[in-house]
Amino acid sequence: MSDVTVSLGANKYGKAECRLVKITRDTARHEIEDLNVTSQLRGARLVDSYLTGDNSLVVATDTQKNTVYAFAREHGVGSPEELLLRLGDHFVSSFDWIEGGLWQAEQYSWDRILLDGLEHDHSFVRKGQATRLATVQKVDGETHVTAGLKDLVVLKSTGSEFRGFPRDRYTTLIETDDRILATSVTGRWRYLPEAVEAGIDFNALYAGVSEVFLATFASVHSLALQQTQWEMGKAAIEAFPEIAEVKFAMPNKHHFLVDLAPYGLENPNEVFYAADRPYGLIEGTIVRDGVAAAPQAWTDVPTFV
Amino acid sequence: MSDVTVSLGANKYGKAECRLVKITRDTARHEIEDLNVTSQLRGARLVDSYLTGDNSLVVATDTQKNTVYAFAREHGVGSPEELLLRLGDHFVSSFDWIEGGLWQAEQYSWDRILLDGLEHDHSFVRKGQATRLATVQKVDGETHVTAGLKDLVVLKSTGSEFRGFPRDRYTTLIETDDRILATSVTGRWRYLPEAVEAGIDFNALYAGVSEVFLATFASVHSLALQQTQWEMGKAAIEAFPEIAEVKFAMPNKHHFLVDLAPYGLENPNEVFYAADRPYGLIEGTIVRDGVAAAPQAWTDVPTFV
Amino acid sequence: MSDVTVSLGANKYGKAECRLVKITRDTARHEIEDLNVTSQLRGARLVDSYLTGDNSLVVATDTQKNTVYAFAREHGVGSPEELLLRLGDHFVSSFDWIEGGLWQAEQYSWDRILLDGLEHDHSFVRKGQATRLATVQKVDGETHVTAGLKDLVVLKSTGSEFRGFPRDRYTTLIETDDRILATSVTGRWRYLPEAVEAGIDFNALYAGVSEVFLATFASVHSLALQQTQWEMGKAAIEAFPEIAEVKFAMPNKHHFLVDLAPYGLENPNEVFYAADRPYGLIEGTIVRDGVAAAPQAWTDVPTFV
Amino acid sequence: MSDVTVSLGANKYGKAECRLVKITRDTARHEIEDLNVTSQLRGARLVDSYLTGDNSLVVATDTQKNTVYAFAREHGVGSPEELLLRLGDHFVSSFDWIEGGLWQAEQYSWDRILLDGLEHDHSFVRKGQATRLATVQKVDGETHVTAGLKDLVVLKSTGSEFRGFPRDRYTTLIETDDRILATSVTGRWRYLPEAVEAGIDFNALYAGVSEVFLATFASVHSLALQQTQWEMGKAAIEAFPEIAEVKFAMPNKHHFLVDLAPYGLENPNEVFYAADRPYGLIEGTIVRDGVAAAPQAWTDVPTFV
Repeated sequence: MSDVTVSLGANKYGKAECRLVKITRDTARHEIEDLNVTSQLRGARLVDSYLTGDNSLVVATDTQKNTVYAFAREHGVGSPEELLLRLGDHFVSSFDWIEGGLWQAEQYSWDRILLDGLEHDHSFVRKGQATRLATVQKVDGETHVTAGLKDLVVLKSTGSEFRGFPRDRYTTLIETDDRILATSVTGRWRYLPEAVEAGIDFNALYAGVSEVFLATFASVHSLALQQTQWEMGKAAIEAFPEIAEVKFAMPNKHHFLVDLAPYGLENPNEVFYAADRPYGLIEGTIVRDGVAAAPQAWTDVPTFV
Repeated sequence: MSDVTVSLGANKYGKAECRLVKITRDTARHEIEDLNVTSQLRGARLVDSYLTGDNSLVVATDTQKNTVYAFAREHGVGSPEELLLRLGDHFVSSFDWIEGGLWQAEQYSWDRILLDGLEHDHSFVRKGQATRLATVQKVDGETHVTAGLKDLVVLKSTGSEFRGFPRDRYTTLIETDDRILATSVTGRWRYLPEAVEAGIDFNALYAGVSEVFLATFASVHSLALQQTQWEMGKAAIEAFPEIAEVKFAMPNKHHFLVDLAPYGLENPNEVFYAADRPYGLIEGTIVRDGVAAAPQAWTDVPTFV
Repeated sequence: MSDVTVSLGANKYGKAECRLVKITRDTARHEIEDLNVTSQLRGARLVDSYLTGDNSLVVATDTQKNTVYAFAREHGVGSPEELLLRLGDHFVSSFDWIEGGLWQAEQYSWDRILLDGLEHDHSFVRKGQATRLATVQKVDGETHVTAGLKDLVVLKSTGSEFRGFPRDRYTTLIETDDRILATSVTGRWRYLPEAVEAGIDFNALYAGVSEVFLATFASVHSLALQQTQWEMGKAAIEAFPEIAEVKFAMPNKHHFLVDLAPYGLENPNEVFYAADRPYGLIEGTIVRDGVAAAPQAWTDVPTFV
Repeated sequence: MSDVTVSLGANKYGKAECRLVKITRDTARHEIEDLNVTSQLRGARLVDSYLTGDNSLVVATDTQKNTVYAFAREHGVGSPEELLLRLGDHFVSSFDWIEGGLWQAEQYSWDRILLDGLEHDHSFVRKGQATRLATVQKVDGETHVTAGLKDLVVLKSTGSEFRGFPRDRYTTLIETDDRILATSVTGRWRYLPEAVEAGIDFNALYAGVSEVFLATFASVHSLALQQTQWEMGKAAIEAFPEIAEVKFAMPNKHHFLVDLAPYGLENPNEVFYAADRPYGLIEGTIVRDGVAAAPQAWTDVPTFV
């Protein structure tokens, strides 16, 4: 078909959404780790699997899945970041044509069920609040680790304004000095490579950053969701020297004051309609000054949606 | 088109999923109530809206929606059951051709964000664990109230068996005396009409039943999900004299032990694959003895799915 | 805990959502049948599985699943109704304590991919338009069959009014003689037992009813969604003597005319905002006169949502 | 908390998911265009909205939404790409501090309902097969346009193998020379800037590329999903000189042959279990040789998921 020629550009392949539940049961008090793991590999020599269907270098996606489960048994989980780091090291070191890849995990939190006020040994209830995220990216001989969360839904019933924006022909929005501010936080932060190298308590960091996000959302008097977002990322970086940068995607989940005047009623910021679509969408990156940029750490990582 | 004639059978109409957020702000410490309300009406004289498109008796679905928001302001919420009771009484008493209807609500829970260990006055984080359910059914001059919950995901990492089932040509399942038992509880309970009449603290009951469900799930050594379900309903009825019956739909969320033998590894109930579909589906009703049956209370209420 | 006693009420159990893809490949021109099958059993003697965890009569949900796949091989599919009828007969006849049950299926349609205008032998693209539904209910020694569809999204850009509705304090809706009417049809129809007995071409009926629904939606000048719904059901019953009754649940998917006046623009029914929630919800049953009612056919069948 | 300083990195903001339905009704034969539009803006001077909550340059997300609807009236739609191009030009030219942005749309297809074999003038049924995608990216003074689709679900019941892959300790997969190959295609292609400049019939191109994708999927005997993907992208580039590159994300939707041997049945590739998770995930880019790379065209565009 003519003299048109094409080449293979960016690519990767693997197994997505391996649902893994790991029970630690060395004592009567069990522990549960509940994850969704994705493994994808990259390597220049994989080009032939695309061009000719030559699979001689294709570590099967089924094999990648098996490795996830086997590693959970051989090495435990500990944290999603540690599991992904082990997986990444394994694939890159075991197959010399695998130059890198992207490993991702979600983790779901469980609380122990209380029985007469005491935590039960082996009965759990899913927490439901926010999903933990982690990625390991191996590229150009370097390893990048990000952590994060999604679906953390927060709301301020006051302490939020939106004023002073420019007006054009299409502007009808009324300024307000008292509105509901609500969002569902998706946030990811990248760890400094030297911190990863030195060893990070990933679970403690996740808990700490989550807490800083919530506290900052609560304490900031918001002039715009942009500002709240900035303050949340800034606070996390200030609190934890391991963090290089934070990326956020935050829908502005609009709560519209219902006009009750037709029924002879006032509505002093009490009754709201929570809308679905459209929604504002505010995205930003907060970066620690003096840190080397690492855009390749974020390749294919779904942050902005 | 021939001599075939048809008639209108069961029907109802209304407005579904009115998302209502009510802020109580009479002090600096705000309260939030977050609901999804559906109102639907029934009445024999509404037949003409179907047969001829005569809308003269059709209380517009838009009007039903407006009433939801107006009532939240005029009377507050308090509990989803109270809001629905007020709505039902309003429609039936305001329009003499409205003979009954079904009013439903979901409610989403929020926690206060902690700032330096203290609960913030007006900043909240969505709890995420379980959605509260309520219905009010008005039919034949009677009023029925149910409460419930869905998406309460629970898991036992041991203390669950499944043995002694019959075997036929198509049976391959191995008996087990130690498996993971996991489900996402959907449960609804009907309140005794006389208890509703006397006045129920719906919020306290909801909290109490939820706690009984969790505690019973945890404490029962399970021989089958059916048995666990029965014990959960039984415990709720024993604990709360206001409850006439409990209905459950519980998927058996299978967690399959991963076969690690091909990799030379044992797997002593540690590493599981959490499957999506298919899933077991166990449904049952637990009824207080001596109570009048009220099947009409459940008409069109989505319990079994 | 006191002298409270409880009993087991309505119940059933089984395996939900067995995803079955059946390829017929007796010639080079393959056929595909793509279903999601749920099997649930009932029987008075199953009470002990709830009360004491005695599983000696519990035909395992895993066995039910296996039977679905084995039957697809042994007997083929043909239509979802026929597959469910075979499954129901099997369970009731093979286990004398199984008195009945509910078997449900969804079916997804595929088109052949066209290559140079010709239908390919073994390459398919999922149609995506509407999901076919079927149920078989066995209860009290009788067998009931329903067929149906969901997610059939239709829209009229004119030919729809809504006027003449009553007004009260909470009514603000403006009357209109030209609006968009849009809905996502969920409809189920019950076949007459004698027609099932005599043999029905279920695939032809499904295609025929779907076509009647669409044609009626298109041709009726709508005074209310209720009226359109009635006419759709009436037309199906008039066209097909096998049908006893039709049940519908139809959201009124609101399309609001956008007010462009603030920007100095008219909007003569051209630019609309398609809203998500809330939505109208119109539900009705259209019944062939002279047919015996069979409410038990619909037990636990999710029609009204 | 100290001497740490932070800066704002990559960011953008706007309004997401403006659901727009445009009816063209200049004749009795109406046309429908059904879209979901997202507008987001970027500009260096917007930094203050993050750092200090200064909104003086923040073109409100509400204004962006209003502009979408007003433009649909003022200029029509025509194609999602043209609508997005108009929006992008407007924002960049109207506000000198807006340097660029990302505009995205989904479009849903509708067929006319047939009445007695004739297409109805104003009654439509949603097609349901695949969602059309479009983006316009304005960055560094350049404009990039991509088109695409998602949720195009295709399946081959034979003509697919997977063999010759390497084996390690964790490999258990059996080689196969006859399997079901199924995927849900997400594909996006970038148009050459000079072709956009010269004018593209975006609707014709969308239809043409979709057809090439389907035909190539059907005609290729697949040795690996990678190879099928490559051939699909290659064919599109060969067929349409306007296309610079194609990106794909394709889940390998596994269909597992059910083992019926325990029931004494053979299963010669007839009965399959369609699994949900995990799934293979194959992603690739096919690039026309000789074309300038434009990674900035893809910034924040959700292709790899």
